[in-house]
Parts: sequence; C-alpha cells; structure tokens
Amino acid sequence: MPNISDRGQQMPASPIRKLVPYAEAAKAKGTKVYHLNIGQPDIKTPEVALDAIRNIDMKVVEYSHSAGIVSYRQKLAKMYQSININVDENEILVTAGGSEAITFAFLSCLNPGDEVIIPEPFYANYNGFAVSAGVVVKPIRSSIEEGFALPAIEEFEKMITPNTKAIVICNPNNPTGYLYSQDEMDQLKQIVLKHDLYLFSDEVYREFCYDGEKHISAMHLNGIENNVVMFDSVSKRYSECGVRIGALVTKNKDIINTALKFGQARLSPPGFGQIAAEASLDTPKEYFDEVYAEYIDRRNFLVEGLNKIEGVYTPMPKGAFYTVAKLPIDDSDKFCQWILSEFAYEGQTVMMAPASGFYSTPGAGKNEVRIAYVLNKEDLGNAIKTLEEALKVYPGRTN
Amino acid sequence: MPNISDRGQQMPASPIRKLVPYAEAAKAKGTKVYHLNIGQPDIKTPEVALDAIRNIDMKVVEYSHSAGIVSYRQKLAKMYQSININVDENEILVTAGGSEAITFAFLSCLNPGDEVIIPEPFYANYNGFAVSAGVVVKPIRSSIEEGFALPAIEEFEKMITPNTKAIVICNPNNPTGYLYSQDEMDQLKQIVLKHDLYLFSDEVYREFCYDGEKHISAMHLNGIENNVVMFDSVSKRYSECGVRIGALVTKNKDIINTALKFGQARLSPPGFGQIAAEASLDTPKEYFDEVYAEYIDRRNFLVEGLNKIEGVYTPMPKGAFYTVAKLPIDDSDKFCQWILSEFAYEGQTVMMAPASGFYSTPGAGKNEVRIAYVLNKEDLGNAIKTLEEALKVYPGRTN
Ligand SMILES: Cc1ncc(COP(=O)(O)O)c(C=O)c1O
Ligand SMILES: Cc1ncc(COP(=O)(O)O)c(C=O)c1O
Repeated sequence: MPNISDRGQQMPASPIRKLVPYAEAAKAKGTKVYHLNIGQPDIKTPEVALDAIRNIDMKVVEYSHSAGIVSYRQKLAKMYQSININVDENEILVTAGGSEAITFAFLSCLNPGDEVIIPEPFYANYNGFAVSAGVVVKPIRSSIEEGFALPAIEEFEKMITPNTKAIVICNPNNPTGYLYSQDEMDQLKQIVLKHDLYLFSDEVYREFCYDGEKHISAMHLNGIENNVVMFDSVSKRYSECGVRIGALVTKNKDIINTALKFGQARLSPPGFGQIAAEASLDTPKEYFDEVYAEYIDRRNFLVEGLNKIEGVYTPMPKGAFYTVAKLPIDDSDKFCQWILSEFAYEGQTVMMAPASGFYSTPGAGKNEVRIAYVLNKEDLGNAIKTLEEALKVYPGRTN
Repeated sequence: MPNISDRGQQMPASPIRKLVPYAEAAKAKGTKVYHLNIGQPDIKTPEVALDAIRNIDMKVVEYSHSAGIVSYRQKLAKMYQSININVDENEILVTAGGSEAITFAFLSCLNPGDEVIIPEPFYANYNGFAVSAGVVVKPIRSSIEEGFALPAIEEFEKMITPNTKAIVICNPNNPTGYLYSQDEMDQLKQIVLKHDLYLFSDEVYREFCYDGEKHISAMHLNGIENNVVMFDSVSKRYSECGVRIGALVTKNKDIINTALKFGQARLSPPGFGQIAAEASLDTPKEYFDEVYAEYIDRRNFLVEGLNKIEGVYTPMPKGAFYTVAKLPIDDSDKFCQWILSEFAYEGQTVMMAPASGFYSTPGAGKNEVRIAYVLNKEDLGNAIKTLEEALKVYPGRTN
C-alpha cells in the first residue's frame, strides 16, 4: 500500500475538531454545550439572497465564467467603488469562498519554499493553505498585552530573508478582533515597498468594525497597487457561509491573469452561490444596522463579563466577532477538553477554541482561548458564568 | 513589483480559451457558431434538483460538514452500492466538483516531483492540477488507429521510474469516448499491484456507456482497494455542471482522512449544490433513458457523418459524449482558428477543440480535433456539413 504524501502528513488537523468528540459526549450526557468556538454566526441570511434562490428560473445549471458571472462581478465592483476600492470586474476573480482566493494567491505569487510573514495569532487555516502550496509561514508575534497591535516595523525587518515574498494580514482580525489603524497600514506599505513584497490582505470581516472606527483596506494604499491582493467573502458579511463565494481582488494584471488560469482548471465557482451572492448586494441597510447593533451589544457584554472574572483578561476588539482571552490556566488545549468532558455547571458547559491553534510558534497561546460572540446575550451570559465557575475548580489553574 | 510564481507561469491556459475571441468575432459578424468544443451538455437538469432548490427552507446558510452533508453522503453511498461499489458515507468526501477531488488526491497522495502516468490524449485540466500540486505528468500514448485502447502493459513498464506513484485513468474517457474493458482494467490492476502505485480513476462520465457495454469501475477491482481513488461528479450525470459538486471516494482510510484535512481547511463544499445533488439522486429512470437515447442517436449520427467526409476518420466512442477525429490538416490549432475567423458556410461555422491540448507530448494530436456531441441533431448536421465544406478549401489541407 503506497504512502500518503509528506504534505498530507504535515497538513494540520483543525485544532477544534479534536474537541468535537468531547462536545458530543457532553451532549449525549444531557449537558447543554454553548458553542463559543465557531465562526458560523447565528444571524439570519438576508431574505433577498434566499428569495433569489427560491426564484431561480433556469433549465440547465451550466458552468459559469471561470472568473464568475459577469453581472455579479460588475455589481460587486460597484460595491467596492462605493467604499473607495477602485476596481472593475476584470480585477475580480470570484472564488469558492475566501478560502479558494487564498489558495489561488499563494499558487499564483509564491514558489514552494517561499516565506510569508504573518502576525500571530492568525486564522489557523492559513497553515493548511501554506502546506498545500508548499509555502513557509514565518509568524511574527503580536501580544495580548499590546492589544494585538501590529508588531513594530523593526520586528518585520528582523524576519525578512531572501525567501520572504509576502506579508499576510487579516483585518479586522480573526482571532483577535484587532483592526489596523491608518498608521499601521502605512507602516505595512513602507515595508512592502522597501522589500518589494506582496501584501495579502484578508478582509472577510470588513463590515464588522465597531466604535465608529473606519476600515482601511489594503486596496486604499496608494503606490503599492501591484503588490496588494485582497481576499474577500460573502460568508460573514451576509451570514451565508454555506454558499461558498469569495473573491480574489487585485489591480495587478499578472496576478489576476495567472489566478484565472487556476480558476479555469477548476472550471467555475459555485453557481447557486453566485446567484445568492449577487442578490445579497441588494441587502437593505437596515439589515446591517441590526447586525451591527447586535454584535456591539454582544461584544460589550462579553468583554465586560470576561474581564470581571478573576484572572481573566481580554482587550476590547474593534472588529470581527471574536476575542482572544487570557485565562489563569496551564494549557488551553487541556482546559478546553477538561471543561467539556469533566465539568458542568447547572447542566451546562462551553466549547472554546484553544488559542494555541492560532499561533505557529510552539508553546505560544497556551493560556489563551478564542471566544466567538456568535450567540445571543442570554446564552453568552450563561456561557460566561459557566466559564467563571469552571476556572474556580480547574485543577490546572495557575493563579 | 514582485514576480508571479514559476508554477503560475507554467500553468497552462485553456487551449479552447484562445479561440474564444475568434468565435466572438465570428458572432459579431453575424455568423452562426456551432459549439462542438464544450463539455457543457444542453440536456436539462432534472426537475427534482431544481425543485429542491426552489423549495429550500432555511434561515441561515451555514457551513456544512467539511466532508459534505451526512444525509447526502449516505444516499450517495447507497447509489454506489447499487452499482457494486461497496462504500459507506465515511469513504466519501464531497468536493467542489470532480475538479477539487482530483486536487485533493494529488495533494494527499503525491509529493512534489512525483510522477503520474496518464494515457494521452487526456482531459487537459489534469495538467493544471498537476502544476498546482507540483506533480509531473508522464504521458503514455494511445492512438486513434487502435481506437484509443489502453496502451500495452510493456509500454507502462517502460515509463515506470522510482518517482512513479500513480496512474490516472479517465473511464469513459474525455476526450476519446473510450471505455475500458474488463481485460484492460485487469491489466491496470496487475501493474498497480506489481509496482505498488495509486490508481486514480476519473469516472465522471460513468453513466454514459453505450451499446450495452458495462462500466467497470476501478472500485470493482478486488485486491487493490487501498490503491484506488475514484473521482466522481454530478456535473455530467445530471447535466448540472454549475452546482459544483463532486466526490473523492476511496476505501483507503489514510487517504480519506488526509483528504479531509484539506477539506477542513477550505471549510465545506457548496451548500446549495449539495442540496441539488442530494435531490438529484431521486431522478427518475426515464430521465436517464431519454438522455441515453438522445446521446446514442447523436453519436451515431455524428460518427457516421464525420466518417463520410473524405480524409476524416473517427472511431466509434463507447462512452461519454466526445469523439476525437483525425482531419486531413496540417495543424488543428491553426485550423480551428481559421475556420472561425476566415471561413463560413451559409453563414455558419464551427468551434472545435484542437486535440493538441489533450496531449502532453509536444507535436502530438496536431491533425486531430475533439468534437462534443452536446448539440441537437439538426445543429450537428449543419456543423458536419460546415466542417466538410471547410476542409475542401482549407489552405493547410494535407491530403
Ligand atoms: C480570517 C478568515 N479568512 C478566510 C475565511 C474563509 O472563509 P470562506 O472560505 O467561508 O470565505 C475565514 C472563515 O472563517 C476567516 O475567518
Ligand atoms: C474527465 C473530466 N474529469 C473531471 C471533470 C471536472 O468536472 P467537474 O469539476 O465539473 O466535476 C471534467 C469536466 O469536464 C472532465 O471532463
């Protein structure tokens, strides 16, 4: 029997998946499990999207253009123009989720062995895409003490080698909820220019910016148009993760043409998903207002609740719908498993993502967890209370 | 401005895309273009599939299981069992088209630099998937004179090196329409066993077998269960290419577990597509009977028509909906461009796929084209007549 590949062996398993059997066992025992671990919002998908699907009128479900339906790209370009991202439909490649956009960018821009610098903690699946593309991730540490701000420019300089080809940012950030300032974006621009690097900017949480903060897209940075590739997705924006539609957006003609060749090989992005995504562009403003109000409310409630627990600290996230919290524990992998399998408070427990999965430096994030505020306030309240009680009795408590 | 990657440069552009501007120019001049170049059938998608989409009843379009919706995998497993492919839902990974299944298999089983042997002519996008995965394609020639039968086992032996890890077959074949016999499948089994290779079997045209011939799946071969990975797709079976649903199927636990890690990184396959695919499994038998009758009729009409043209030869394909025809021409790339841009017969012309795109041996297939019989008979008749007239006056005619 032949062996599986080296990259197949290196491919990381999802850090959360390991916990799934424990969550299932807890549920089987009748314990209520609050899922603070996921990036799947409970917010409703806009009616316009679902209606478009219910009203489809076609006889043959054909392949679409490999770059995506033209009318969708045109309408999407208009949306981008409305937020000062000046692209046209030929600078957009519609992909199967933001996920495929990341893969296409790595394949189009990077050779096997090339290095990408990513501020950690970062979205864990970047590791998987890097393994698929044979690319080496070089983490650069951002810390909870500094609220996960962009590491100093000197720290980037230290990491750069002749193999460094790109910096990957996620803004607003998953898992930290951090939102980069104009100043930080300008620093990134300087370093990208100085070393002629690509700047891959994952902006799938763009619409989730709080406290009146403005989102600065990498596409807004003048003078590095050819260096920037933006990843986008409808998954979070319209709470329609399952439609699997994203986009790779760039002003760089070589990249878009190259990415299209990868796109042609896989023929076309999901057809019904594109119909839903196109219709979603007509989502009324009130929808976003409601979602915004809901998330702000949840965030404030969660952050306040967490910081009241003795020994717990989380900064105030300015975007997305996650926060990373420091807990008084020895090892978040152990703790997240323990709370599911050995603990319950009034018949309830919580599932969280151990932050270690978001760091690529070994040992980092051991006393941190990522908490998503994708539950309603009542559930969030119960989850926080459960966490508080659990920390009181956890055998691996550190202070 | 940084360079695009080597693999991005090596990535082949679709051989048909080059012709698109010429087809568009012809249409702009008012010429009717018959599309014999495409793998997009004109057959209707089953009503059960479209109805399932029209009747969706969900509030949030969530990520599905990374391996695909469980109920869909269970039902699909039942379908496979009904054709003697004995797998359960855990031996199936639902993918974004057969395309993604191929990519996942390459990534899971092969290291960069590993060689795969593929009888040529073959589905052109295998080249693209190989470039993405850093895998080397070693073509082994099948010839029109022998009706594109499996090359002799000695020819395979000659190609095998220490880097050979897999054989890829497509059965029934795109572009040739060839269907492997039990004897040929047994030969493949022997060679796979002897050299401990993977057998990747692309069976996306399984339902299109004519003249009472039975389809022998690689999954039917006893004793090489751990070597076989099957690729499947709903694209052709139900004429729903746009839904983007395929599957990777294997009894090999290591492969399915590894492929699932790649599947987890990209989160989930298309949601609406899975709903359509699941419903499609209830397509009534009459649908297939009609499709079958239609294709048989078209095939016979096309093959007879082509072989009547002086200097033209095509074997009788036993499956899929393509045939490769030998034409009395110098260069099919030139000819296919010429017929679109310089020729018209009664205001009509044809678009065909130059067969060179399906060969990886340089210079091979220069006097062959692939013709898809995805048009109704009237259109097919006009297309054949147009081709006949074109060959009479083509300046690069050879005999
Ligand atoms: C930071 C980030 N990027 C990309 C993705 C990929 O999302 P999708 O493929 O659904 O667009 C996610 C999903 O959680 C994410 O959190
Ligand atoms: C031989 C073969 N394999 C795989 C595919 C991929 O199809 P899909 O990704 O639509 O399932 C095709 C499409 O034409 C094909 O012809």
